Amino acid sequence: MRVLGIDPGLTRCGVGVVEGDPGRPLSLVDVGVIRTSSDLDVPRRLVTIEKGIDAWLDEYAPDAVAIERIFARSDVSTIMGTVQAAGIAMVCGARRGIPVAQHTPSEVKAAVSGNGRADKDQVTGMVTRILRLDAPPKPADAADALAIAITHLWRGGGQTRVDTARGAAAPTAAAQRWAEALAASKAAGKSATRKRP
Amino acid sequence: MRVLGIDPGLTRCGVGVVEGDPGRPLSLVDVGVIRTSSDLDVPRRLVTIEKGIDAWLDEYAPDAVAIERIFARSDVSTIMGTVQAAGIAMVCGARRGIPVAQHTPSEVKAAVSGNGRADKDQVTGMVTRILRLDAPPKPADAADALAIAITHLWRGGGQTRVDTARGAAAPTAAAQRWAEALAASKAAGKSATRKRP
Repeated sequence: MRVLGIDPGLTRCGVGVVEGDPGRPLSLVDVGVIRTSSDLDVPRRLVTIEKGIDAWLDEYAPDAVAIERIFARSDVSTIMGTVQAAGIAMVCGARRGIPVAQHTPSEVKAAVSGNGRADKDQVTGMVTRILRLDAPPKPADAADALAIAITHLWRGGGQTRVDTARGAAAPTAAAQRWAEALAASKAAGKSATRKRP
Repeated sequence: MRVLGIDPGLTRCGVGVVEGDPGRPLSLVDVGVIRTSSDLDVPRRLVTIEKGIDAWLDEYAPDAVAIERIFARSDVSTIMGTVQAAGIAMVCGARRGIPVAQHTPSEVKAAVSGNGRADKDQVTGMVTRILRLDAPPKPADAADALAIAITHLWRGGGQTRVDTARGAAAPTAAAQRWAEALAASKAAGKSATRKRP
């Protein structure tokens, strides 16, 4: 299963594709950032984001799109563009018939690091380990996009909640395979990290 | 000049097309509401809005798209869908190269009724008069969409600020023609209203 993770933003929109099959470690397919110029007006910036996401969908044909869910803040004017970028991402996936899921920041942090309050460096560090990368993905938006894709895969693509830490009451066969994949992936990530100086 | 006015919303998105040329009263081309079912998830509802707006753009080929500008409220979660619908509307216009403008609710109220704090009934009443309609457009979202289109035309399509009430310091020829059109339109609207029992 291949997932396009999206960390929505008007100036920088992180995009990352992760692939994973039950019983095997996850792997990085590609990661990047769609940037838009503040010289353009908002409608044209949103069109740039739309074209960028469409290009990623064309290139990698993911089975699912996972987007970071945006939460209300006291000053909504600062997140207007982020909310609209997320809306564009939803439309890009949904009009191709690709399932679109949203995961909250704390779900993403908990999934990749085991701690819903992990900081950005911890998340980036875990993404680097889980995908056995030689260097942390940059900028942070790119690492976040990968974390969202990983979360989606580890949560069973929105179908099955896999919680290895607490243990599911009655894990399905699929959930068990995912738990094995998680363990294998984490072990692989750790040993790869140890090999490096 | 033909303008598509949009009152964005996830459940009901008002759309109205108004046509106007300098020196002539404005006229209604078409008005309606794009509805989406709450049974669908948000990505699919946004796709429905996108398809609806695209159909209106195909049908009426407007010279401009005018959208109501959304303002921050204390509880942003309630306007998330509205903000995203507005973003989709912007993209639909901008990717065709059609100029996209936004007008605030108070600008719209002031333009059509002369009072930035007019209530919904006053706005609907003035839209009915200005466009010489036999009955008020319904629902309110449809009337609002027409009010936004009227505002855009009377503000000179975003090019020239026409303010007949206070008088521009140095009105251009175009602004004067718009002022005449406004007066003619209002007079026509009033006389038409008086003719009805």
